[in-house]
Amino acid sequence: MQEREIYLDNPPLGEALGKYFKELEEAGALKPTGAEVVDVREALGRITSEPVFARISSPHYNAAAMDGIAVSAKDTFGASEKNPVRLKEGVNFWPVDTGDPLPPGCDAVIMIEEVHPLEGGEVEIVSPCAPWDNVRSIGEDVAATELIVPENHRLRPQDLSAVIAAGHETVKVRKKPKVAVIPTGSELVDPGTPLKPGDIIESNSAMLAGLVEEWGGKAIVMEKVKDDFKLIMQRVQKAVELADVVLINAGSSAGTEDYTSNCIKALGKLSVHGVAIRPGKPVVLGLIEGKPVIGIPGYPVSAYLAMELFVKPVLYKMQGLPVPGREKIKARLSRRVVSSIGTLEFLRVKVGRLGGEYVASPLSRGAGVIMSVVRADGMVRIPETKEGIEAGEYVEVELLKSQEEIENSVLIIGSHDVSIDILANEIKRFYPEITLSSAHVGSMGGIMALMRGEAHLAGIHLLDPDTGEYNVSYIKKYLPNRRIFLVNLAYRQQGLMVKKGNPKGVKGIEDLMREDITFINRQKGAGTRILLDLKLKELGIDPVQIKGYGKEEYTHLAVAATVAGGGADVGLGIMAAAKAFDLDFIPVAPERYDIAIPEEFYHTDLMQKILEIMRSDEFKKKIESLGGYDTSMTGELIGGD
Amino acid sequence: MQEREIYLDNPPLGEALGKYFKELEEAGALKPTGAEVVDVREALGRITSEPVFARISSPHYNAAAMDGIAVSAKDTFGASEKNPVRLKEGVNFWPVDTGDPLPPGCDAVIMIEEVHPLEGGEVEIVSPCAPWDNVRSIGEDVAATELIVPENHRLRPQDLSAVIAAGHETVKVRKKPKVAVIPTGSELVDPGTPLKPGDIIESNSAMLAGLVEEWGGKAIVMEKVKDDFKLIMQRVQKAVELADVVLINAGSSAGTEDYTSNCIKALGKLSVHGVAIRPGKPVVLGLIEGKPVIGIPGYPVSAYLAMELFVKPVLYKMQGLPVPGREKIKARLSRRVVSSIGTLEFLRVKVGRLGGEYVASPLSRGAGVIMSVVRADGMVRIPETKEGIEAGEYVEVELLKSQEEIENSVLIIGSHDVSIDILANEIKRFYPEITLSSAHVGSMGGIMALMRGEAHLAGIHLLDPDTGEYNVSYIKKYLPNRRIFLVNLAYRQQGLMVKKGNPKGVKGIEDLMREDITFINRQKGAGTRILLDLKLKELGIDPVQIKGYGKEEYTHLAVAATVAGGGADVGLGIMAAAKAFDLDFIPVAPERYDIAIPEEFYHTDLMQKILEIMRSDEFKKKIESLGGYDTSMTGELIGGD
Repeated sequence: MQEREIYLDNPPLGEALGKYFKELEEAGALKPTGAEVVDVREALGRITSEPVFARISSPHYNAAAMDGIAVSAKDTFGASEKNPVRLKEGVNFWPVDTGDPLPPGCDAVIMIEEVHPLEGGEVEIVSPCAPWDNVRSIGEDVAATELIVPENHRLRPQDLSAVIAAGHETVKVRKKPKVAVIPTGSELVDPGTPLKPGDIIESNSAMLAGLVEEWGGKAIVMEKVKDDFKLIMQRVQKAVELADVVLINAGSSAGTEDYTSNCIKALGKLSVHGVAIRPGKPVVLGLIEGKPVIGIPGYPVSAYLAMELFVKPVLYKMQGLPVPGREKIKARLSRRVVSSIGTLEFLRVKVGRLGGEYVASPLSRGAGVIMSVVRADGMVRIPETKEGIEAGEYVEVELLKSQEEIENSVLIIGSHDVSIDILANEIKRFYPEITLSSAHVGSMGGIMALMRGEAHLAGIHLLDPDTGEYNVSYIKKYLPNRRIFLVNLAYRQQGLMVKKGNPKGVKGIEDLMREDITFINRQKGAGTRILLDLKLKELGIDPVQIKGYGKEEYTHLAVAATVAGGGADVGLGIMAAAKAFDLDFIPVAPERYDIAIPEEFYHTDLMQKILEIMRSDEFKKKIESLGGYDTSMTGELIGGD
Repeated sequence: MQEREIYLDNPPLGEALGKYFKELEEAGALKPTGAEVVDVREALGRITSEPVFARISSPHYNAAAMDGIAVSAKDTFGASEKNPVRLKEGVNFWPVDTGDPLPPGCDAVIMIEEVHPLEGGEVEIVSPCAPWDNVRSIGEDVAATELIVPENHRLRPQDLSAVIAAGHETVKVRKKPKVAVIPTGSELVDPGTPLKPGDIIESNSAMLAGLVEEWGGKAIVMEKVKDDFKLIMQRVQKAVELADVVLINAGSSAGTEDYTSNCIKALGKLSVHGVAIRPGKPVVLGLIEGKPVIGIPGYPVSAYLAMELFVKPVLYKMQGLPVPGREKIKARLSRRVVSSIGTLEFLRVKVGRLGGEYVASPLSRGAGVIMSVVRADGMVRIPETKEGIEAGEYVEVELLKSQEEIENSVLIIGSHDVSIDILANEIKRFYPEITLSSAHVGSMGGIMALMRGEAHLAGIHLLDPDTGEYNVSYIKKYLPNRRIFLVNLAYRQQGLMVKKGNPKGVKGIEDLMREDITFINRQKGAGTRILLDLKLKELGIDPVQIKGYGKEEYTHLAVAATVAGGGADVGLGIMAAAKAFDLDFIPVAPERYDIAIPEEFYHTDLMQKILEIMRSDEFKKKIESLGGYDTSMTGELIGGD
């Protein structure tokens, strides 16, 4: 088996950043990029490479600030109701509109409303004016030679206007730093390629290029390279010629960043290989020909973090800009998180405003789960010195969304149902400011989330084996002192999902005991799991008789995917999921899926808008079209406790 | 003289917005723009026009999550240090790298570190593994059919990556709303045209187009049109064909928005003409062929506000997005501001963090002063129901910059000097995160600003006529209980500025009395004014003998501009200003320009960085090159009190 370098004792983040940026500074790799001259009208968002001083004043002449007549103020002295003063057009007054230059000898403007026209081109005024009344004098807005915007300034729309008014047609701005992105990995295929096992769609470079563009750089995405040291060397050499910064995106295989580090060693200087962070540990930091060359890990979340921590400051420094910080808030962590001493962990969290404070709930911690970054509202740093964070501890969250968006986010935690996705989308369609943000942890997980105060809503379908009733008894048992409203989302059919054509001839739950059948289960606490266990009990089947009973998935779709992928023969789930994966579906039981809403949230504006959407015909129609749903009770109140 | 419509009783902002947006809704003018299909890799920042569901799962096969060997977990049961289990390659184990698909029959991966190689292709393990250990199962990141991003979602870099990983090559996004911008006004000339009095450079459309782009639209700037009703009508008709929204930018003359309102009346429906706001009052709101047509006032600050208040919500609604609010902070208003009952005023303010709170200082209120928007850190709304705001009242500021930028802003208030502009620029060059933000209100104004706690620093050059010493006695008198450090910025020559060639043969202060000479003065409290008054006293000249003594400007440059423009024959000011306007300069006296620094600010990191810049040779060289400066004491401490 292939040998790999072991990089024990990775330096902590601060040390790695300090060392690398010192070396970059010394090599002159961070000095601002050169300048280019652009038309001011095309300079929006560009960074000035030198200060802009006014060439001319604005106004560049003394201008009437009102419609009226221009006069010499001294001709009006002494005017009053009793002793009106007469002025003659072309002799001692001239009509002017706003913006007109003052005629020679004039130093004031009288508003048209204060002028009484007489016959023969004469007018009368009944009060004097002072010199410079109603005049915009030279330089009132911009005085020639004054500083309009300094160097290192990002040009905003109002700046463009001022720079033009100050007499400029062009402006000197920094060239955008060019960043080459090299995707590597023999497993990579282009988007759209038919996939075989082992293929991975090359999706990272879109994110890398997008981040580069957001940070003011110009991304050059190069052709992907196989895991071949010589080919990678050639591509890196070419990239160093083309660009100011080179990013080598490793394959997702654990050892492939060694190609990057060896390549940097061969062509330049390796500064750091491996940093004590998670995700993002296998980042590689180096220099070739005085240019930053950074090895970005292959797992997407690691890649995202490596970009944020190492590439962002490089790009901002090259543009002469401060590195913008993220907005931070204090939040209560809803669940305990364990982490390793010696590693700085970046935990993705959902954040909700609940009971007057922010509550952060941890998302999937896997480095391969890009959806955890898509879904995240923020990041929490768990320092190297801590073994984790206790539930209820207050943490600092670096927000990935604006605080305004967080305030308008409704967190629904519980069992997954496709109708929740549909609901989330309908809400965004009619109320773009509201986000219904879901986390899938099963029905009991949803009830626990309400108990811990980490969710606004819970999506549940919990069958009480004793009463045959859904949800009500669980709410009473686990949330005894709270008033909870239950609103029906839909009735849905639960059933066994099997491969198209039902090759193993599955007829019902009793077939799960068969030796030739592998099952894929849902996690403990999931409503579907409770239904299964009840059915097994009714049939007197011992779970140990079922192959695969111990292998759990967290959503209907993951179960269906497992069956479709051959990882199991049968799973229990909803018809919509079976349909999505083109599986056959053997009905087992209908079940009621409700949304549990604590009273204090039920009466909010936000919730009323969501209920309005749930009760709309359009929403019901979209749900029905999925198949296996009955919406006759959708949006109806089931009852409080 | 031409007649104009009088629009008394302008509706308040809320009423105007309500009426207009109701009419737009009814006309269907705000429905989201149509969709277009773009490559996901080019979709950064675009808005989804439909939800994106996953086409495939990621991973789409069960994948090794570690480098190691793939096994069937049941083959490892019972393994221990005492009873190691042997496995044979190709029979019951297969080497895998991270990302490899699991071979058929395998359901777990054992990390390479836990595998002991033997001879003959065999390995030994000493602990069992459980099914699915170290396996990334199908759909762990993305499950086919799940919602990746909803409709009305702005695509971020991480979203692009997730959408590609979910099996998409393209994505449906909203077309950018097209916005035609029509500059009107016979006085307008293109940037770069040699100017004659009355000409105004067409600078507004760059700002209008820039704002449209920032808000997600596509701006189409059309050729400018003279104030000719027929021509304007033709241009508007063409614009309505081309674009989704039409902006008609009035000339700066008071009556020209009537062309816009009459044009809208003729071609469509006029909704609102004039709103009780300042600046921005003469805005015109209408519809032509079901499209929003908005008359933007000609003065740049009015234009900026009309865009923000009326065009921004139109564009966001057309994209299906919520209108983003501005960050708000509470600040103490430093000075009293008087405003009119019945008008909602938008006051531009500088904001500084001073003495543990935010302090907002009003900037120029003129609608024609675009530099007030360039310089502003925020806006304060003075409601219709108030006659103004008292000094010391707390106000809500809508920020135009980030709070982080405000925290790193140093406010210097006082006398204007070109060297302050140079210093501001040098600071931005070396410390891009720091902004030296200046307001020009004269030396005494600077001292008052320190008294009121509205500035970090004051720039002063106040001559004590009794001692002949600069600044020290003023600090003692006006800030008796505070410890203030004085640091020299430079010694500079004050003198009389006259037209090139000195056509009136001015030799000194005594010439100001001459009948054929008009003077332009500085405002009361300005150090230059005190110097003048002292010199006049020494010479026994009564100010009433000086023509123009009563006309005041607020900066050296404005005085020089007035002389250069022929508004006066002589002004007193510094050599740098004379040089900038190519004026002759007759020295009167050297003076010391110091920066007054309260003790509590002197010791901050921010101030130490500024002092470091002031003491640098590069800064001194740049000042010297302006002419008329002596930097031998620059950056030196003059003394405390």
